[in-house]
Amino acid sequence: MVKSLLYLNSVAPSYRWWLASHSSKRCRFISSTAAVAAKMSMEQYSFGPYKIDAKEVFYSTSLSYAMVNLRPLFPGHVLVCPKREVKRFVDLTVDETSDLWITAQKVGGQLECYHKASSLTFAIQDGPQAGQTVPHVHIHILPRKAGDFENNDEIYDAIDAKEKELKQKLDLDKERKDRSLEEMAQEADDYRSLFL
Amino acid sequence: MVKSLLYLNSVAPSYRWWLASHSSKRCRFISSTAAVAAKMSMEQYSFGPYKIDAKEVFYSTSLSYAMVNLRPLFPGHVLVCPKREVKRFVDLTVDETSDLWITAQKVGGQLECYHKASSLTFAIQDGPQAGQTVPHVHIHILPRKAGDFENNDEIYDAIDAKEKELKQKLDLDKERKDRSLEEMAQEADDYRSLFL
Repeated sequence: MVKSLLYLNSVAPSYRWWLASHSSKRCRFISSTAAVAAKMSMEQYSFGPYKIDAKEVFYSTSLSYAMVNLRPLFPGHVLVCPKREVKRFVDLTVDETSDLWITAQKVGGQLECYHKASSLTFAIQDGPQAGQTVPHVHIHILPRKAGDFENNDEIYDAIDAKEKELKQKLDLDKERKDRSLEEMAQEADDYRSLFL
Repeated sequence: MVKSLLYLNSVAPSYRWWLASHSSKRCRFISSTAAVAAKMSMEQYSFGPYKIDAKEVFYSTSLSYAMVNLRPLFPGHVLVCPKREVKRFVDLTVDETSDLWITAQKVGGQLECYHKASSLTFAIQDGPQAGQTVPHVHIHILPRKAGDFENNDEIYDAIDAKEKELKQKLDLDKERKDRSLEEMAQEADDYRSLFL
């Protein structure tokens, strides 16, 4: 609770109101979180050829989902994907494109606030020559803070390196121990409650 | 015409059909282009605090517009913006967000084909800590080809450098001679015909 209040002091007034009003519904919050988590846990999520554990998914619509990262650059680096496996951005329908970016907008807004950041990087590496390694459209969202990278472009070096790592890790199940499912599930639980 | 046919041979069959069917309507095409250009030329476009010449705009909806770049990294590096001056992505309405990305999808698809590229980079530097220098949401779209940058991340170094340059150039009208309005208008004319 002390931590929550400290957090409330650092966020924008309008969002502070939102957090305060939601904090007062804490019991219902937990109940709703459990219900949404239960619903999400029954869904099947894929990321290119890979199956994603529903525990890693923290927000979902009929067309899109948001998941925590196997090896994030830092807390809050998440991916938003269309549910349908589509390699290129141009292949998404109008409804999928709209839903994907409205989802990304919501996710970015909440995680920027949650992580006390002040900016966001949104990037799609759309196709192999743009650095895409997993053939399923995905938006990288990264909450940004002053001085998080010495030069802003270093964030993209890191995204590229992580994209390659991600593919290797998804290929090798045993390597996924680098970050436990429990840790990822906990992070996803924390984020899930932001969207109720 | 020879150039057009050569171009047709290098593109995907479905797009080749589209181009061929539109090429057969060349006269109507020119007429439509002129009509659309005339309509666009009557609109007022702003990019943060800067006024944008309508000749630089090649695609426009009720909520978004696409413009050529003052100093592109290479041909096809363009910007897509909401018409309303909004600093942060989260401040866009649902309709603006949808329209912005459906516009970006159309623009990216056409320019990738037009420039015989094979991938696209889409990026929003959303806020100062993410590298944003002009306080008006804008999507960078870059057609990508194999080997265009030695390391993929170099493209982001270049985006950052250009973003800073762009602001300096927009601040100093006399410096805009680096790339003439005529050259930019010609490029915008070429692109405008892709969206009819």
